[in-house]
Amino acid sequence: MVEQSIIEINMTDRSGRKHSVPEEFDFLGGRGLTSTIVSREVDPSCHPLGPENMLVLAPGLFAGSVLSSANRLSAGAKSPLTGGIKEANSGGMAAYRMGRLGIKAVKITGSPGKAVQSLGIRISKEGVSFEDLSALQGKGTYETAETLLNMYGSKCALLVIGPAGERRLPTACININDMEGEPCRNLGRGGLGAVMGSKGIKAIIIDDEGAASPWKGNLQVKEAVKSFAAKLKEHPVTGEKFAMYGTVMTLLSVNALGGLPTRNFSSGLFEDAGNIGAETLRETIASRGGMTAHSCMPGCVIRCSNKYVDPEGNPVVGSLDFETVCLLGSNIGISSLDRIAELNRLCNDYGVDTMETGVALGVMGEAGVFEFGDYDRIKEIIHGIGGGTELGRIAGSGAETAGRIYGVDRVPVVKGQGMAAYDPRAIKGMGVTYAMSPMGADHTAGNAITLAVDHLDPGVQVEPVRDLHIDTMVLDSLGVCIFTGRVSLGSKEVLEEVLKAFYGKIITFDALRDMAKQSLRIEKLFNKQAGIDDRRDKLPGFMLKEKLAPNNSVFDVAAGDMETFYRFLSEDKE
Amino acid sequence: MVEQSIIEINMTDRSGRKHSVPEEFDFLGGRGLTSTIVSREVDPSCHPLGPENMLVLAPGLFAGSVLSSANRLSAGAKSPLTGGIKEANSGGMAAYRMGRLGIKAVKITGSPGKAVQSLGIRISKEGVSFEDLSALQGKGTYETAETLLNMYGSKCALLVIGPAGERRLPTACININDMEGEPCRNLGRGGLGAVMGSKGIKAIIIDDEGAASPWKGNLQVKEAVKSFAAKLKEHPVTGEKFAMYGTVMTLLSVNALGGLPTRNFSSGLFEDAGNIGAETLRETIASRGGMTAHSCMPGCVIRCSNKYVDPEGNPVVGSLDFETVCLLGSNIGISSLDRIAELNRLCNDYGVDTMETGVALGVMGEAGVFEFGDYDRIKEIIHGIGGGTELGRIAGSGAETAGRIYGVDRVPVVKGQGMAAYDPRAIKGMGVTYAMSPMGADHTAGNAITLAVDHLDPGVQVEPVRDLHIDTMVLDSLGVCIFTGRVSLGSKEVLEEVLKAFYGKIITFDALRDMAKQSLRIEKLFNKQAGIDDRRDKLPGFMLKEKLAPNNSVFDVAAGDMETFYRFLSEDKE
Repeated sequence: MVEQSIIEINMTDRSGRKHSVPEEFDFLGGRGLTSTIVSREVDPSCHPLGPENMLVLAPGLFAGSVLSSANRLSAGAKSPLTGGIKEANSGGMAAYRMGRLGIKAVKITGSPGKAVQSLGIRISKEGVSFEDLSALQGKGTYETAETLLNMYGSKCALLVIGPAGERRLPTACININDMEGEPCRNLGRGGLGAVMGSKGIKAIIIDDEGAASPWKGNLQVKEAVKSFAAKLKEHPVTGEKFAMYGTVMTLLSVNALGGLPTRNFSSGLFEDAGNIGAETLRETIASRGGMTAHSCMPGCVIRCSNKYVDPEGNPVVGSLDFETVCLLGSNIGISSLDRIAELNRLCNDYGVDTMETGVALGVMGEAGVFEFGDYDRIKEIIHGIGGGTELGRIAGSGAETAGRIYGVDRVPVVKGQGMAAYDPRAIKGMGVTYAMSPMGADHTAGNAITLAVDHLDPGVQVEPVRDLHIDTMVLDSLGVCIFTGRVSLGSKEVLEEVLKAFYGKIITFDALRDMAKQSLRIEKLFNKQAGIDDRRDKLPGFMLKEKLAPNNSVFDVAAGDMETFYRFLSEDKE
Repeated sequence: MVEQSIIEINMTDRSGRKHSVPEEFDFLGGRGLTSTIVSREVDPSCHPLGPENMLVLAPGLFAGSVLSSANRLSAGAKSPLTGGIKEANSGGMAAYRMGRLGIKAVKITGSPGKAVQSLGIRISKEGVSFEDLSALQGKGTYETAETLLNMYGSKCALLVIGPAGERRLPTACININDMEGEPCRNLGRGGLGAVMGSKGIKAIIIDDEGAASPWKGNLQVKEAVKSFAAKLKEHPVTGEKFAMYGTVMTLLSVNALGGLPTRNFSSGLFEDAGNIGAETLRETIASRGGMTAHSCMPGCVIRCSNKYVDPEGNPVVGSLDFETVCLLGSNIGISSLDRIAELNRLCNDYGVDTMETGVALGVMGEAGVFEFGDYDRIKEIIHGIGGGTELGRIAGSGAETAGRIYGVDRVPVVKGQGMAAYDPRAIKGMGVTYAMSPMGADHTAGNAITLAVDHLDPGVQVEPVRDLHIDTMVLDSLGVCIFTGRVSLGSKEVLEEVLKAFYGKIITFDALRDMAKQSLRIEKLFNKQAGIDDRRDKLPGFMLKEKLAPNNSVFDVAAGDMETFYRFLSEDKE
């Protein structure tokens, strides 16, 4: 096995210690590992912003190598947004550098007290040190990242928070720098940036100088990396479409299915979808000299990322992605990519999840706080997140809270988390995913849009979506991007071969699925102990009654079918 | 039996119908009845502000008579504040008038759509009519009440909401007029005013012209009324202390016990308690010509209410009570009764719960939104509740939401509802009540301060508090004020005799307790179905760890003891 360690950091006494990795974690990484650690070590009834909560970072099993799409970093904690267990994962440089340092996981507990909001944690071959970053207090993530890369070296990986995280807003994210240093790869959902902020941490700096890939010179690994990349390149979606259009490739088809959230989920059809669709995005970026076919992390051959630029070719934001284009676009009545990109940039800079912010703004639009499409007013509200105005704080506290404050009863959330860019009345499998995920309405828990089913048929969703949740947990726990799914899950052998090459052992896909089920069980149990039980596995009532144009459909997957979703957990239990 | 009816109102088609009362409800009123109806007829997963929620009003079994302290009105619904079942009850004129009209309950469902916020419902001998009150839209409760009493007759009972209810803020209350017409008797907790507002109702007018007490001329009843009053008068507390000092009589003793919430529950001792204590209140009111020993409803001989006046003798607010004096006083650093009275008046006028507002403000003070004690700024924030500023909306959305928005981890709530004016680290029985009540942190569910136990001893609380919850449910379901408890619960015979006189039947106290247990079971079940299970029967973590001055005590009633609290529900089940 590769030599690895777990780093334990206590912010109360500012101590850092290295521990060896228990054998049981040998084949557990990413989400599986963060959820296992959180469920064992965090009191489910603790306050998410209190010192008892723990921020856990865990790369996957191939981190530090250049296996394509396999350098995702998971972060876990009790969520300030949902009150339940949370995992968010992201590309960028962090997992890669952590892998090279032999870091299996980083666990951060404690708090230096509320007055301290500006500590840095530097992790390198020499160990852990604590840095005074008070000069960066209140700064946006872009300035923060630029300063830190100048201070600590441009090759460092960074995890930083913006003013939203310092303010402990429940939608604050943690931003990771990409290969160009832009802090635009976000551990986005569930307010993990607020957990980091509550521990007084402004930035985590991963400096892998002097380290190398744990598999350096390993020919089997080299071969497996090549072979996996070749398979991804062969597939029309992972080999071509993602690189051409990025994630926005989905937008027009979701709109055609009548499932594109528009003006707070009041329609599934956005009349200006063409203006914000994939062709427009591609042409705009190409004509201005931005980048498409960009990799968000070392080794990725899918390259779904992009760099959006303004008409003069100046950088605006790294990777304008589908969820953002919809939720900060059609969902709030904005139909210009330039405007969406600017809002995206602001959210990144202030350090809030673009998705939750978009859903919250949708609710505020419905309440009449602004007219849908009123770009100037929306921009002002987002500036308020950075500036700490009450309006900004509300927008930065998530859709459910916005609904409370403005008395709105059409609030598209599950377990306190806003929905992604698929209306579950038209993409019903996504409704199953939203309802069932322990994370709240998280599309990545089982990205049902990829299923080859009739998305409007309520009778055919539950079983394939359940399989998808398990498969997704497999990928999330390996640190492998779900966008590889068409290939990596295409046959059992694909991942088995990769694991054999990297670890010299046969780990069957079925064994991975068993571990995945165990991780789902653990997450559900944590939630239950936190007071969030199966009765919260539901979509908001309005989606069961209010017909969505243009299909005039409601979410009508039978409650009885939904209840069978997790049956496997009790059936498989010894 | 007295001839009674249940009135069903649907606001979607603006229809009202009278129904007969099922026999099973013969001896069920108040909270027992609202909770039974809500649990049967409201989908636990509905949005509290949606048309599916139901606002249920139910007087008690003696409503319309002048039995002392027995004209309380219960209101029930799914709570916008807690997401669980809610009952709030209050004195004032409403139950009395409803009793004379033979109204067992009023059930209100549906919604006329969001544009309509200004309907009146008039209930009289002739039935139900719908009134256009658009002239009152946005008006405070004082102007609303005055206008309505001029329009419909000064003897009408009113239930009105202020701008907070129209805005559907989760702490909006429903105000009932007292005998002088002041809309100061509040169905305060849990946002029932928002439910009323979500149904487009500005006011409910109960006009009992032509009606009489259902027991008019009944000599047994006359005798029972006399005898009950005599018993209350004989007891030193119900016969004298309440009339002399009002509910504020508790303040100095709670402070002496080290349990008076001060500056967001950061101390149990308020250095200026003397300035806001009972003697000061009494002297101030007396020297200025206000009223003490005031009855909040017809027939009450306890007379705990008062009318606070300014230095010139002008009315400020009807009944300055203990919870408000603490939560809008010591808890936010205000040490002047004049100032507290003014804040109370404003909250009443805008139609928000003074208690939840005080707890929310405490959290905001901790966040640094204002300096504790900064009266001008606090007043401005409360004005914002009336004016709909973002700051006002936050303060009007409850302590839990304020904690989210400002990233505070010391938030004194249970199940989303703010605590009352007893810190549970010093008054531990109250902690049991807060944790266990299906209503959230509701002191009235089991007012443990009245128990003759060592309030600091964690080992002696659970059993007597459990009994108190059952007894309280008995009183709440009879429509009898809990302040009668020292007498009405003093022996089993007291209530049995009253019931015998009024209903000609022997209903044993034990039978009442059995019904009470059933009502508690129903409430817990509703919550469970709404996703709020026993795991939420907990105080916030900081109260288990952070020592409270001056006792340096934490809440340490053993979790195992707490878990036995509701064991009787399963034991008694057939």
